[in-house]
Amino acid sequence: MTNSADTVHAHLSPTSLRLSDQPTVTVIGDGQLARMMHTEAIELGVHVRILASDAHNSAAQVVGDVVIGDYTDLADVRAVVAGSDAVTFDHEHVPTEHLHALRAAGVNVQPGPEALVNAQDKLVMRTKLAQLGAPVPEFAAIESLDDARSFFAAMNGAVCIKARRGGYDGHGVWFPDTREELDELITKLLDAGTLLMAERKVALVRELSAMVARTPSGATQAWPVVESVQTNGICTLAIAPAPGLGAVETQVRELAATIATSLGVTGALAVELFETRNAHGEPEIFVNELAMRPHNTGHWTQDGCITSQFEQHLRAVLDFPLGSTEMTAPVTVMANVLGAENDPEMSMAERMRQVWLRHPEAKIHLYGKSHRAGRKIGHVNVSGDDVNQVRSTALACAHFLVHARWP
Amino acid sequence: MTNSADTVHAHLSPTSLRLSDQPTVTVIGDGQLARMMHTEAIELGVHVRILASDAHNSAAQVVGDVVIGDYTDLADVRAVVAGSDAVTFDHEHVPTEHLHALRAAGVNVQPGPEALVNAQDKLVMRTKLAQLGAPVPEFAAIESLDDARSFFAAMNGAVCIKARRGGYDGHGVWFPDTREELDELITKLLDAGTLLMAERKVALVRELSAMVARTPSGATQAWPVVESVQTNGICTLAIAPAPGLGAVETQVRELAATIATSLGVTGALAVELFETRNAHGEPEIFVNELAMRPHNTGHWTQDGCITSQFEQHLRAVLDFPLGSTEMTAPVTVMANVLGAENDPEMSMAERMRQVWLRHPEAKIHLYGKSHRAGRKIGHVNVSGDDVNQVRSTALACAHFLVHARWP
Ligand SMILES: Nc1ncnc2c1ncn2[C@@H]1O[C@H](COP(=O)(O)OP(=O)(O)OP(=O)(O)O)[C@@H](O)[C@H]1O
Ligand SMILES: Nc1ncnc2c1ncn2[C@@H]1O[C@H](COP(=O)(O)OP(=O)(O)OP(=O)(O)O)[C@@H](O)[C@H]1O
Repeated sequence: MTNSADTVHAHLSPTSLRLSDQPTVTVIGDGQLARMMHTEAIELGVHVRILASDAHNSAAQVVGDVVIGDYTDLADVRAVVAGSDAVTFDHEHVPTEHLHALRAAGVNVQPGPEALVNAQDKLVMRTKLAQLGAPVPEFAAIESLDDARSFFAAMNGAVCIKARRGGYDGHGVWFPDTREELDELITKLLDAGTLLMAERKVALVRELSAMVARTPSGATQAWPVVESVQTNGICTLAIAPAPGLGAVETQVRELAATIATSLGVTGALAVELFETRNAHGEPEIFVNELAMRPHNTGHWTQDGCITSQFEQHLRAVLDFPLGSTEMTAPVTVMANVLGAENDPEMSMAERMRQVWLRHPEAKIHLYGKSHRAGRKIGHVNVSGDDVNQVRSTALACAHFLVHARWP
Repeated sequence: MTNSADTVHAHLSPTSLRLSDQPTVTVIGDGQLARMMHTEAIELGVHVRILASDAHNSAAQVVGDVVIGDYTDLADVRAVVAGSDAVTFDHEHVPTEHLHALRAAGVNVQPGPEALVNAQDKLVMRTKLAQLGAPVPEFAAIESLDDARSFFAAMNGAVCIKARRGGYDGHGVWFPDTREELDELITKLLDAGTLLMAERKVALVRELSAMVARTPSGATQAWPVVESVQTNGICTLAIAPAPGLGAVETQVRELAATIATSLGVTGALAVELFETRNAHGEPEIFVNELAMRPHNTGHWTQDGCITSQFEQHLRAVLDFPLGSTEMTAPVTVMANVLGAENDPEMSMAERMRQVWLRHPEAKIHLYGKSHRAGRKIGHVNVSGDDVNQVRSTALACAHFLVHARWP
């Protein structure tokens, strides 16, 4: 009998684990977003297959049906999507031409390439949003040093330069303060072949995130708008609901739904926003960024909403009716666990123990990732009545998981 | 590149998916309980390995680290537990001698064989509980027809005959009404070699379930007591909290914690109870059954509590501090989805669609099981303020998933 104690997946082709009556969603990607989609898929009885670049990556550790391949290789992508009811993503980097090829072959890609291009190229997105009348900071394409100089002059030097593609967590965003800095930066970037745009540097009061899900049939469902706190370009905190939003809440929720509909987004959409003040000191909103997938600012929904962003994303891409986005507590705060400069000696298990001893209500989520400075390795959700208390508990727990000491 | 698109698990030994700093829990079993443990383990960053009898079984479909083997074969069990931080179960059927052998070899088995025997043998359990002073119906070992006849006479014919081992969902429970029925039943069962006991047939008002988790270090944490509705011996509904319990709630919670501590249970413990009325018409409680693992009457905690029974079970067997068992809604009701006599033609996906169209707040959990009459294939959790409304919604949703029509 000892011989039978063998890894099962050695004997199986990817599809053979699936019940005939069960929808299959293929997720291109192997990060924490794919991992947390699988969590919800298990409960829904939805079969998840992933295309992973490495068997040790976050989602590949925990999914039963893993295919190793390269998402930039059309043959690999074709192989993994065979027999899927829907294909979706945990990142925006699959080349749109591959997605057009899949669509042409009858594959149900959600979101589709026409929508996704707006999450891939910041200039395309801003142009499109401006056409729709959505509020975006003034912007311009930058194809030459002259373009940059004249935009810089027009904005009185309050500019932000962005790589059109491939930026994340603040990589690909620059704030030159002087003409000299601008010249040096633009020359370097254009020489390196980076596609660029510029926009007005907004005097932001805070950042917000409005998330919504949309089905191929056109139904939309928004979550409460959250305040997101960014530190060095990385989201460190999300506070749900965003304190003191007032009438802006409805306006922003509607904006997110309008963007989802106008761009034909399916699945989860995160609309990252700037809150600033107009000339009368009243709140004014600008759209900064779109993400067409579950998003870091939506992790709080796992423990703070009837339907989490991961469940909703799966329901949306399968064109199921969307779930209730009612909150299950007055306040939920998510704090990211970001790898420290130096990883403390205390094991992560011992850190969890210490956190739970003090805060039995803390919901710890870890992604199965090893330490690297600044890397997103997990998050903590805390719910309660009082935003200040919940926020400081979430921050303290995340701090302990990172530093092995209380703040 | 096409060659690289291959199932990953073909290339890997079970342990190689695991991060060095990550606790590993091996679950012996491949049913829905193991499946739902994996759901929570993913979020905690706990690595789960399962011993499955078949790669298509509920948990084996969704876990990354699956070993195929036979839990009655010690060599298979030894192979799967190698390198685990804790070993636990999704059923009570692993022979206790195997567990003693593992313990002797230094394996961290939770719960241990001394505790588990009380969930395997109804007579051992009742004897032990009686010694502890816990309320159990009068009972007796039945080794002969004479034993049965005298117990029947002593109880004025109000008896319940039970197989000591292997019963589930009402299989192995008999209610002979007459001396003739008794004689026939006992003769047949003794001839078949069934180990038997008898107990007083209780005039039950309703059934309750008190769940608690306990760590090897001795910490306990109880969930709110629920009312469980049994239909033909199968749990169909759990209502949390049990309506109108009053002072009995505290008494029952303490009883469950006492049993967990006295029996040395670790992980989740379900104490199934009868509520009846004493001579003064006051509520009286008897213990019916113990289960040392997550339990059907605790599925509501997935959507109704800060810490679900599956997360808590993992935390407990790893000796982590236990999580808060506070409810996240005033009422949560769980309704089981049990295979109908005849499975309707409508696909399960279409049934989910219909349910969610009417009830976007319904939390559907499916186990990846194909249809069989009476089989537990899923459950629905619904939360809200009003117990009658929540209960009827949960029942209606489960009914639709089973019958493809509304009740
Ligand atoms: N026009 C602007 N005015 C002021 N601050 C800005 C502007 N654009 C970006 N920022 C700041 O830089 C941060 C990073 O910008 P952005 O979100 O565009 O980058 P990203 O790399 O795409 O980030 P993410 O991964 O969060 O989407 C923003 O969170 C904001 O704090
Ligand atoms: N002593 C008793 N008096 C009255 N009814 C009883 C008695 N014992 C059992 N029953 C009824 O029979 C049902 C099944 O009994 P029991 O729970 O012992 O069986 P089981 O097969 O072990 O069930 P489970 O799988 O739920 O643990 C109970 O839920 C209860 O309705």
